[in-house]
Amino acid sequence: MSSATPTRRRSRGSSRRDAPISQLDWGQPRHRHPLIKVVSDDETAAIHQTSLKILEEIGIVFGDDEALRIFKAGGALVDADSGRVRIGREIVSAAIDSAPARFHLQARNPGRAVEIGGDAIAYTTVLGPPNCSDIVRGRRPGSLADFEDFVRLGETFNIIHMIAGSPVEPNDIPVPIRHLRSAQSMMELSGKVPYVFAHSRQRVWDVLEMLAIVHGLKGREALADAPRIYSILNTNSPLQYDGPMAGGVIELARHNQLAVISPFSLAGATMPLPLAGAVAMSNAEALAGVTLSQLVRPGAPVATAAKTINVDMKTGAPAFGSPEANKALQIGAQLARSLGLPFRAANFNSSNAPDAQALYESQASLWAAVTAGTNLVMHAAGWLEGGLCASFEKFVLDVEILQIMSAYLTPVPVNAETLSIGEIAEVGPGGHFFGTERTIAGYEKAFYAPLISSTQNYGAWQEAGGKDATQRAHDIYQRALKEYRQPGLAEDRQAALSAFVERRIAEGGAPVD
Amino acid sequence: MSSATPTRRRSRGSSRRDAPISQLDWGQPRHRHPLIKVVSDDETAAIHQTSLKILEEIGIVFGDDEALRIFKAGGALVDADSGRVRIGREIVSAAIDSAPARFHLQARNPGRAVEIGGDAIAYTTVLGPPNCSDIVRGRRPGSLADFEDFVRLGETFNIIHMIAGSPVEPNDIPVPIRHLRSAQSMMELSGKVPYVFAHSRQRVWDVLEMLAIVHGLKGREALADAPRIYSILNTNSPLQYDGPMAGGVIELARHNQLAVISPFSLAGATMPLPLAGAVAMSNAEALAGVTLSQLVRPGAPVATAAKTINVDMKTGAPAFGSPEANKALQIGAQLARSLGLPFRAANFNSSNAPDAQALYESQASLWAAVTAGTNLVMHAAGWLEGGLCASFEKFVLDVEILQIMSAYLTPVPVNAETLSIGEIAEVGPGGHFFGTERTIAGYEKAFYAPLISSTQNYGAWQEAGGKDATQRAHDIYQRALKEYRQPGLAEDRQAALSAFVERRIAEGGAPVD
Repeated sequence: MSSATPTRRRSRGSSRRDAPISQLDWGQPRHRHPLIKVVSDDETAAIHQTSLKILEEIGIVFGDDEALRIFKAGGALVDADSGRVRIGREIVSAAIDSAPARFHLQARNPGRAVEIGGDAIAYTTVLGPPNCSDIVRGRRPGSLADFEDFVRLGETFNIIHMIAGSPVEPNDIPVPIRHLRSAQSMMELSGKVPYVFAHSRQRVWDVLEMLAIVHGLKGREALADAPRIYSILNTNSPLQYDGPMAGGVIELARHNQLAVISPFSLAGATMPLPLAGAVAMSNAEALAGVTLSQLVRPGAPVATAAKTINVDMKTGAPAFGSPEANKALQIGAQLARSLGLPFRAANFNSSNAPDAQALYESQASLWAAVTAGTNLVMHAAGWLEGGLCASFEKFVLDVEILQIMSAYLTPVPVNAETLSIGEIAEVGPGGHFFGTERTIAGYEKAFYAPLISSTQNYGAWQEAGGKDATQRAHDIYQRALKEYRQPGLAEDRQAALSAFVERRIAEGGAPVD
Repeated sequence: MSSATPTRRRSRGSSRRDAPISQLDWGQPRHRHPLIKVVSDDETAAIHQTSLKILEEIGIVFGDDEALRIFKAGGALVDADSGRVRIGREIVSAAIDSAPARFHLQARNPGRAVEIGGDAIAYTTVLGPPNCSDIVRGRRPGSLADFEDFVRLGETFNIIHMIAGSPVEPNDIPVPIRHLRSAQSMMELSGKVPYVFAHSRQRVWDVLEMLAIVHGLKGREALADAPRIYSILNTNSPLQYDGPMAGGVIELARHNQLAVISPFSLAGATMPLPLAGAVAMSNAEALAGVTLSQLVRPGAPVATAAKTINVDMKTGAPAFGSPEANKALQIGAQLARSLGLPFRAANFNSSNAPDAQALYESQASLWAAVTAGTNLVMHAAGWLEGGLCASFEKFVLDVEILQIMSAYLTPVPVNAETLSIGEIAEVGPGGHFFGTERTIAGYEKAFYAPLISSTQNYGAWQEAGGKDATQRAHDIYQRALKEYRQPGLAEDRQAALSAFVERRIAEGGAPVD
């Protein structure tokens, strides 16, 4: 039990390329503890009633003709000129009732299916930053090569359940064909559940065709037997869905794929300043999307995110990771639970570096999400700069805090055996438990084995190079890329996928909106 | 609302020495949400019954003759040769009943009294490291000058409710007089509740005499009208109290001062490997101290910390900040709540630098403590290296996460006014809330104003020097020391305090045990 010997062994181990990174096995963590309530059940109900009133009396604008037709057919009051839709509460309530409380997403690797809802938690990679960084090469606009490295990290780490894409924007690929090249990379490099951007109907259709191919199905219509892909649908607050987002909700529902309805709302900017009003409005926006989805296909999988983020009144920027954002998130989770809808959150922070701020904000976001009963945590690994940069070191630091959270959520067995009174009597006052039968048999697996966290003493740490956690994360992301193994894809499906992509590229891809 | 202008104004502000640091007002955060339960109520009861059985059947060793006499007089079975005390469950239960569930600690600054117990949370500075560090001067053994700087920071930041001392060990002061010089510094430099080490009866008496002087009381016996100081009493696990710790429990109870009974226990080393058994034994040790306290003086203020920390089986070091430690902490908190005793936790981490690891571990420790209903968080600011180093930057980073937690715990009002339906209708789809009457009136105080966290965009941040959070924390600790104002102490009390210290130093101080 001296610190020197195991430390040396460990440091030799980490320099050997054949020693795999020690990580948790694949699996979804589960909520086990009573969940936080920031407001009372009555207050939750009052917020929801306000949301219903907003939809019924004020209404919400949809910038898509098909959406307006669907709402009209569903009984809503539609003003075709302004696109404003007033949705009666009975229509919204029916949609809430028909939306499933939990469901599975199938993956092309059958061992990587994911449950959404109930007590399940799922984590995704970061999604959407235009830039990426690592501490050696610095900050740069993302490329397809960077995109692919993030997908490889998402595939390698078991605590990441779904790929969100683009984990970084592949700026070197022309926009009309970017969805094709990036979806191809995502589906080839990972067997986990992939992501589709709802930038236009054509692009959604293209990616769904590709998804059908890698699942061995005949065309995108055949996907409707099970959810296999997901997309974030943002509102254009206050109270607006633009054309692509409305179209995305419709197409995902039509194909029975997961629409994560996520108002991106700023209290004091696109939402009222008081959090209660901001969450009420955010919930209204989310429920409008849920309603559209369920009008297209009752039972289509949806998740909501009636959350809001405050603006930093000093910089005018969204304060991702702020205490108010965490409270608003938890009220949103209470609302979703009360409605029986899966709830999404995010691992947010505003920091410009993978530093102390990035991690205290991320850790607070994660604890807020988990203690509130969140089912899907977007941007769970790699997000920096309020979403403008994907960091390779942050990705690994986040993997560590996600794994630690899983260890925290593992139940503590309390029984005659674990209460240990016989062993305590045997050891007695002043003894020690290092040598007891149970300690020797159990110690290797008794506690979480850290990925990055060090308990080395200062001298040993200095001798080993004195690397801080971010520098150690850099080393681990490099090792993870070396250890990455591409999951196999049947030869005929691979050929069909390539043929489809090359044909669509030859056709010019999808026009830019 | 452009980001450039306020950013520039802010960066000018932070370089002006006359601009005071923006921080929260003095006040204690309060628990408001339902608290986490890691195990069921039945399991909590089973753990407690095991603790009672340990005390009754196995017993616990006290290395202090007076403690043995007190236990014998109180009805326990005492083996004078071995010092082993077997305490019947009715004796323990009576002590639990007589210990107060909540009480106040008076401070020499009347505005800095602190409530312990109930829904109150109190934070202390770091306590006990032999070394300290800052990123400019590096790591070094602590001196009285460093000690005093940490006390000044503790006095300056309102979120720190009590001074824990030594925040760093003043190694340049000879041990026999160290308690005198350091207590003098603590009591002169801060008007907040101070700390006394229970290293020997003589040293406790000396510090209590000094406490009486600064409160204008005639001798330490006069302190018994109200709690004004506190001490951590560690057990020597398994199942032992050494002489100074037992003596400390007795002297604190005798003077009606707060004894924080804190078994320092390592699962798989000084405790059984299973957390249930480790917490049961830790709780037994804590309750032995509570019982001794209450036998001396029924109603004497105590707090407990039936927690345990696992050993990192790779390094043999305590894994401060581990997920198992956080779970064990929360079970301990459940036990304390079920017994009606105030509960202490700590802001733990194992990192060797004020880096990402330090903060993700600290943030997890803090969330675990707060969601479990902890009343007193020791080492809340400044702890590094598993307690072997006090870091000036970590102190300020911790102040930030403590302030953020307070903002998180502030209630969200839900009522017709905050639900904002009128304002939402007025702004309508596609508008914005920047210019509404309420946003303009309320935005300055609506959200937490960060101490360190930055939401600057990357370009503005780079232009301002690209300092990471730890570097910004360095600047703020330097500013805080410049802004520090020593609280006044009446001339006669100051003179009496100095005279007492000089006399005791002339007498040789207190002999080393």
